[in-house]
Amino acid sequence: MSRALARFCAACGQPIVRRIPAGDSRERDVCERCGAVHYVNPRPVVGTIPVWQDTVLLCRRAIEPRYGKWTLPAGFMEVGETTADGALRETLEEAGARVELGPLFSMIDVPHVEQVHIFFQARLLDLSFAPGEESLEVQLFHERSIPWPELAFRTVSATLRHFFADRARGCFGVHTEAITPVSPVHRGSGA
Amino acid sequence: MSRALARFCAACGQPIVRRIPAGDSRERDVCERCGAVHYVNPRPVVGTIPVWQDTVLLCRRAIEPRYGKWTLPAGFMEVGETTADGALRETLEEAGARVELGPLFSMIDVPHVEQVHIFFQARLLDLSFAPGEESLEVQLFHERSIPWPELAFRTVSATLRHFFADRARGCFGVHTEAITPVSPVHRGSGA
Repeated sequence: MSRALARFCAACGQPIVRRIPAGDSRERDVCERCGAVHYVNPRPVVGTIPVWQDTVLLCRRAIEPRYGKWTLPAGFMEVGETTADGALRETLEEAGARVELGPLFSMIDVPHVEQVHIFFQARLLDLSFAPGEESLEVQLFHERSIPWPELAFRTVSATLRHFFADRARGCFGVHTEAITPVSPVHRGSGA
Repeated sequence: MSRALARFCAACGQPIVRRIPAGDSRERDVCERCGAVHYVNPRPVVGTIPVWQDTVLLCRRAIEPRYGKWTLPAGFMEVGETTADGALRETLEEAGARVELGPLFSMIDVPHVEQVHIFFQARLLDLSFAPGEESLEVQLFHERSIPWPELAFRTVSATLRHFFADRARGCFGVHTEAITPVSPVHRGSGA
């Protein structure tokens, strides 16, 4: 779900140009005919850490990117919903899992893909989870069996690392950090 | 800076239609010619609570919406930056203020305007602040002199309320909440 390159004005259909609008300091997609300025902003991705006793629920992705890799349930926030609404929706859609939402746990910037990943703590209400259309399988993992090299995204591995560290010391915080691009040498490993 | 209504495909310039794409569950702007799906997602607004001794820096808005009202420095996050980058940039642009950024303080959903407002604690490095192009004036306020009825946005008043409450008890947390639309009866007051 990457963004289509904008070449035409979404308001009037004319070709757009890249220039700095009056009173602005950045190049934008501007329509010289109707005057529309088409701003592009980073997008929130929202999800949960669904917990059952001492296990965490992960989904194996049935879609690209990272087909076949494991992830926490998460996805793009939709208009009209809150971060909490979106996290609950994605947990239900991807893992068929009903959870009670807990506090905010991590907010991780991924500037090179123009995203902010936001995870909430969550408690599974029952074991009736099942893979949704975007998941191949859904499974509970103990900390010792987390498939670390097979995790889909670094925001997921960072969130899980913080989660297990906080659990070990008996105190859950809110974690913020930024993830930078993987160097080309390592990109092939999917890390 | 509201969004232009999309009527044409930004990729190929043809008229778009609203329909649910295959494998999706929501109506999107879809181009029947080139197949592009134009997703729209909520936007992060990032800012700071700039503190000097026992005062907080506020900006009086020189732009709509809420021209003439007071706000914490904040604005739309730009692509390529982190939430922290954006918060520092907005603080410099709107208040001419250089700060040392502290921890995340509040994340407030505003679903009816498709935004998530994110504020960080911040410490002013000096008193050389000055209004930027989007501010009429910039001023330090003691808690007792905060112009509560003249604050521009409820995310700002909620963040300031949490800030002063946390400061009074000597312990700063991370605050999350959602703001719902003001009823039409009260909207005229600018609250």
